[in-house]
Amino acid sequence: MSRGLVVQKYGGSSVANVERIQRVAKRVVGYSKKGYDLVVVVSALGDTTDELVELADKINPNPSEREMDMLLSTGEQISVALLAMAIHKLGSQAISFTGSQVGILTDNSHTRARIIKINVDKIRAELKKGRIVIVAGFQGVTLNQEITTLGRGGSDLTAVALAKELQADSCEIYTDVMGIYTTDPRIEPNARKIKEITYDEMLEMASLGAQVMQPRSIEVAKKFNVPLHVRSSFNTQSGTMIIKEVKKMEDVLVSGVTLNKNEAKITLCGVPDKPGVAVKLFEELATSGVSVDMIVQNVSHTRSTDISFTIAKADCLKASKITKKVAKKIGANDVLLDEDIARVSIVGVGMKSHHGVAAKMFGILADNKINIEMISTSDISISCIIKKKDAEIAVKKLHADFGLSKAK
Amino acid sequence: MSRGLVVQKYGGSSVANVERIQRVAKRVVGYSKKGYDLVVVVSALGDTTDELVELADKINPNPSEREMDMLLSTGEQISVALLAMAIHKLGSQAISFTGSQVGILTDNSHTRARIIKINVDKIRAELKKGRIVIVAGFQGVTLNQEITTLGRGGSDLTAVALAKELQADSCEIYTDVMGIYTTDPRIEPNARKIKEITYDEMLEMASLGAQVMQPRSIEVAKKFNVPLHVRSSFNTQSGTMIIKEVKKMEDVLVSGVTLNKNEAKITLCGVPDKPGVAVKLFEELATSGVSVDMIVQNVSHTRSTDISFTIAKADCLKASKITKKVAKKIGANDVLLDEDIARVSIVGVGMKSHHGVAAKMFGILADNKINIEMISTSDISISCIIKKKDAEIAVKKLHADFGLSKAK
Repeated sequence: MSRGLVVQKYGGSSVANVERIQRVAKRVVGYSKKGYDLVVVVSALGDTTDELVELADKINPNPSEREMDMLLSTGEQISVALLAMAIHKLGSQAISFTGSQVGILTDNSHTRARIIKINVDKIRAELKKGRIVIVAGFQGVTLNQEITTLGRGGSDLTAVALAKELQADSCEIYTDVMGIYTTDPRIEPNARKIKEITYDEMLEMASLGAQVMQPRSIEVAKKFNVPLHVRSSFNTQSGTMIIKEVKKMEDVLVSGVTLNKNEAKITLCGVPDKPGVAVKLFEELATSGVSVDMIVQNVSHTRSTDISFTIAKADCLKASKITKKVAKKIGANDVLLDEDIARVSIVGVGMKSHHGVAAKMFGILADNKINIEMISTSDISISCIIKKKDAEIAVKKLHADFGLSKAK
Repeated sequence: MSRGLVVQKYGGSSVANVERIQRVAKRVVGYSKKGYDLVVVVSALGDTTDELVELADKINPNPSEREMDMLLSTGEQISVALLAMAIHKLGSQAISFTGSQVGILTDNSHTRARIIKINVDKIRAELKKGRIVIVAGFQGVTLNQEITTLGRGGSDLTAVALAKELQADSCEIYTDVMGIYTTDPRIEPNARKIKEITYDEMLEMASLGAQVMQPRSIEVAKKFNVPLHVRSSFNTQSGTMIIKEVKKMEDVLVSGVTLNKNEAKITLCGVPDKPGVAVKLFEELATSGVSVDMIVQNVSHTRSTDISFTIAKADCLKASKITKKVAKKIGANDVLLDEDIARVSIVGVGMKSHHGVAAKMFGILADNKINIEMISTSDISISCIIKKKDAEIAVKKLHADFGLSKAK
């Protein structure tokens, strides 16, 4: 009879110190003793990656991406070795592998490589020997033996890709929270843990600010229909299942409320209202690697118009410099930078078939005297840019009025 | 015209922090600009290896050697990436490689692997592109893609093996001291830096306690006649050349005095004076991985004899346990452990052709009322075990009386 195969991924906070590594080892061994074949993907210990980035920055603020991958991939290599040792200590068999050793083949895009192929023969062979297989997350290798990394949160991707390739029965993502919440529980203590959520909703929530999982890994899980279980490594309660379709009560329109305070707004005032003007600006921004998020062009009453857009705060300086340059070229009046904004969003597949969700959202904000500066919508989400000072109250009110709070 | 090729090795203290890494980068770039092809071997930053060992020990005091290699090899990987970044910052081209990437093929003996073959094609190709090639020291890879390490000080071996394989014009070992000294300058301020020393003398000195280079790397250098230059990474003065033959004044008998305080002595008293008794003891010790250094069996006047031997202090507990067990079995009287000993040695190829060097050494010690407890000799060295409290004075007197001190 074939044994079940489970892929488990433990994030950095789950292996932040000796005691936590031991706890993960215990949990892993417990699973293994239940009769599962286990493949365990581990991130770097706690803040290791940040510390290495900081060290590199002191040496070269503009480091080669190839060398960054060389540097950062050591973090996960340390984790897998230590976890293997901890499992050995408990008397079970385990073997650790780097991404390179285990055959996670990627393209050449250092620091954001894409997985091309995984050869799981080695893993299968080790599982057959009765060993727990521990794989370094976040990293891969090119055909040319160059070490690559998969971008921030890349260990999620490693786990999902392995689960797909190994046709695992389940893929568990262990983290320091209990699962996916209807909103950030630090803002709204009434936030509920979501039992089931669709890939699409999770993707939307992740890209709108929920930081539990890497968006790319959810895309891949969706593409190959890998069911994910996001749960806490600190207890044994079940967390949130991320799956294809969720059977919901008909009146559940909104699954979650997200908040993102890491954006800034730039407004280019008095832009001559002629075709092709906006294009110039966004071309220049794209060329410089500034990724623009929302864009709003006001309806113009005169011969000129205002264009507002949001960007990541980190790109503020670069973006406002470029915008000022373009403003001069095209004869715009002024460039305004506003860092005191927040994006509050509601997410839910229920919106697709229900009208009036946007209107309800705007109404809730209006009732609370919160001014909406920009709006952006997708099939399953609506985002509003508001003043940062209104952010928390907006989240709380939306959360309550869309019926997400815990039953009293 | 072919350019000169230099292999440089920088030890952990030479890359202990950001500022030192930058200094090494500067030195390397300076050499490269002089027109040399450069291959740079780097150890782990400062105390990284010790810190990783400590971390592993907390998790599993008896860790798998395979996983230890997995863990420890990250130290050098961090160093090479950072050094590459530092060189890039100075505007030069450089590329870093792990032992695995660069094709340092070893056997399967984890934590003390032996190099089988090095494929230097990759290095040559990168040098041809005008790049400085940085190689992680201390590590290799098996045919099966398993990561191995070459034992403590293994980066020296990496450098020597690369120098041999690349037929380098020179192999420079950078360290935090100025070169090889006639004795430890911390004990004897009059110690002189040795300009030239033979492989054999250096080997002897290294195995007798001088910690500048890994003994195995010197063996390999000797075997393939790779000239070594041991020098400081903190200045540009030339250090010590380690070569095949040194032209010396005829009256130079002794090249250096070494001291080793890391041994302990065990005496097994009242051993029945029958053949095969000693064998039992040393077999048991060897089986348990205790490496015995000097052995002295006292001339017996009665039917029983005493056997004394020295071991590394780290093996004390294990060794005395085993000896007590054997003592019981063979009917010996008593087992004595003495940790208050030191080994003082003189080294010099000049001894080979001169008699009376040993007598002179014993005389010097006797004149200073230093009791000799054990004696061991080789072709080019004489070692005496003395009381630890006499160690420093013994070194000073031997150093002076064999004419090694600085000219006044």
